[in-house]
Amino acid sequence: MLPRSLHDLPTPAVVVEADRLEANLRAMAALCARHGVRLRPHVKTHKCVPLARRQIELGAVGLSAAKVSEARVFTDAGLDDVLVAYPLRGDKVAALRALDATVSTLVDDEAGVDALAAGWAGAARPLGVAVKVDVGLGRVGVPWDRPERVLALARRIEAAQSLRFWGLVTHAGQAYRAPDAEAVAAVGRHEGDAMAQVAQHLRGAGQRVPCVSVGSTPTARFAVARPGVDELRPGVYVFHDAQQVALGAATWADCALTVLTTVVSRGDDRRAICDAGSKTFSSDRGAHGTDRVPFGVLPDVPGLGLVGLSEEHGWLRAEAADAPQPGERLRIVPAHACAVVNLARHLWIVQGERVVDRWPVAASGQVC
Amino acid sequence: MLPRSLHDLPTPAVVVEADRLEANLRAMAALCARHGVRLRPHVKTHKCVPLARRQIELGAVGLSAAKVSEARVFTDAGLDDVLVAYPLRGDKVAALRALDATVSTLVDDEAGVDALAAGWAGAARPLGVAVKVDVGLGRVGVPWDRPERVLALARRIEAAQSLRFWGLVTHAGQAYRAPDAEAVAAVGRHEGDAMAQVAQHLRGAGQRVPCVSVGSTPTARFAVARPGVDELRPGVYVFHDAQQVALGAATWADCALTVLTTVVSRGDDRRAICDAGSKTFSSDRGAHGTDRVPFGVLPDVPGLGLVGLSEEHGWLRAEAADAPQPGERLRIVPAHACAVVNLARHLWIVQGERVVDRWPVAASGQVC
Repeated sequence: MLPRSLHDLPTPAVVVEADRLEANLRAMAALCARHGVRLRPHVKTHKCVPLARRQIELGAVGLSAAKVSEARVFTDAGLDDVLVAYPLRGDKVAALRALDATVSTLVDDEAGVDALAAGWAGAARPLGVAVKVDVGLGRVGVPWDRPERVLALARRIEAAQSLRFWGLVTHAGQAYRAPDAEAVAAVGRHEGDAMAQVAQHLRGAGQRVPCVSVGSTPTARFAVARPGVDELRPGVYVFHDAQQVALGAATWADCALTVLTTVVSRGDDRRAICDAGSKTFSSDRGAHGTDRVPFGVLPDVPGLGLVGLSEEHGWLRAEAADAPQPGERLRIVPAHACAVVNLARHLWIVQGERVVDRWPVAASGQVC
Repeated sequence: MLPRSLHDLPTPAVVVEADRLEANLRAMAALCARHGVRLRPHVKTHKCVPLARRQIELGAVGLSAAKVSEARVFTDAGLDDVLVAYPLRGDKVAALRALDATVSTLVDDEAGVDALAAGWAGAARPLGVAVKVDVGLGRVGVPWDRPERVLALARRIEAAQSLRFWGLVTHAGQAYRAPDAEAVAAVGRHEGDAMAQVAQHLRGAGQRVPCVSVGSTPTARFAVARPGVDELRPGVYVFHDAQQVALGAATWADCALTVLTTVVSRGDDRRAICDAGSKTFSSDRGAHGTDRVPFGVLPDVPGLGLVGLSEEHGWLRAEAADAPQPGERLRIVPAHACAVVNLARHLWIVQGERVVDRWPVAASGQVC
């Protein structure tokens, strides 16, 4: 049986406001619909089957996942058309094949194509394989200014009997390093345009490009409007977080996920300690190792900051002489929602103060 | 059935070398025995029942835990005498009482004493309650230079019929901020001496002090030698990590825990990407929010560094032109072992390349 009220939840707890979540889901679905772009949300943010179902109900064409074990949670639950947006090696190819669903994946080198071709040999249906393009993050992918290498990989995929060329995929994660909202917008425009340019190169050489897929929450509204973009793969938009607010991608009122925590000690008028530390918030202060924002923010309590974390302690600092008292409960917007969810076993879904559901984080803490 | 060899493990995997673990366990047990000090290791590092059993076999008097839900994993498994070294509020007191074992806890203010006294009323046996003393971390606890406040709390505990005064507890976590090994040693000496001084104040006022308990891995060998210290509560010593090496508390040869990861992409001669990111390593670069060390270190691969993390990607940078190739497997010593274990569902135990066991991380990712 569910606790009735937010006030009854044991802390620390990860709490999701149902109405804000629904509004975020609808806003992204509407953005994509307005531009005629498909939405394939990334489940790494939420790892929750009910949330993925709602994304599909609202028009998402399928899901993106970061690893096979994460994808399996959703395909085992009957969800279909999952892009494992990660270069798979070794036993991961067999693990992907073992999923009972339509799946696809990506590569960024020849050996990757060959491993997938061998691993998929004899399958009833060919595996969709995208080429990952790097538009500036500097992580995985063929650099966007080397379209001839992208073309060579696409042709190698097409030449493999067990594979079919799925299209082009990128993630402009460098937006998380952008100094301000205008720079984020520029990254988003570049993301769309660079990918369209690579696709044009392939098409000019006679290579069909079924899909140009881009995606990140901060760049979504800029990239979606660029000609030639077919699909968006954002993740964090479902909850938003302090980082997305800092990047201009959300307001505090959009932040659907908070950590509910209890003050357990008060060192002095300025210092209090709460029961959520790095094992609840993670130590993330931004995606991709950035440190743009504090570990957490209390938008409703001006002058109070979460300034440090031990494993099970949060360090609260009050600017004025009003640190909260032991026993007080606070709700804190984390820096990076994906990392918080990954540490939780379940999310508490609330409407106002009423607890309406509890969703298991189906793949939390699943290293492999 | 277990995979036979390290080479058969799916990656990313958290791997523990059994022989190094055993040596670390024995070394700390011997250190304590040599000084006639009791050992009450902190389970927050490993969260593994078999490992706690081995600690007890080697002479530990009991266990320390950071929260009731963590303690429950061990008391449910039949382990006894657990100190929940955390100021408990609200429903946590009832949760503690529900444990089927001898437990104890701590306070740092009057309201904490009163909450425990009320929550333990009518129990068959009194609850052991320590006073937390702050020797410089600036987190939880009565400052060590306010011994009259410690005495007042001890007397309040003694005055409550359902409680008994357990002793004094501290954690000199400020050692993690010490600039060098000599400064760590100074923190350790201060930890022991400050606590002995507080105990002396209480005894001078006629208050019995059953136990003076200190503890952290970096300060252990310094604090253990100070007169008046009765008990040590280190955690990380079982595995050690890059941070402990930087603090002078361990050598690379002592590091029993590594992340096994596969290279999945190679951007250029200098850059490679592996399949372990912040959802495996955490974003910790030190305890208590410090950032002393990189996210991970490859002691056996000179010139190769783990320089960044996305959620499922590790960024490897080669100083010379020799970045590893896709498919290569690497073992990386993390910055902070506790955070890595907390993200894993199980630990793979190896002897050389042979996999000998798999231990569930019984309380991984358990926010509450």
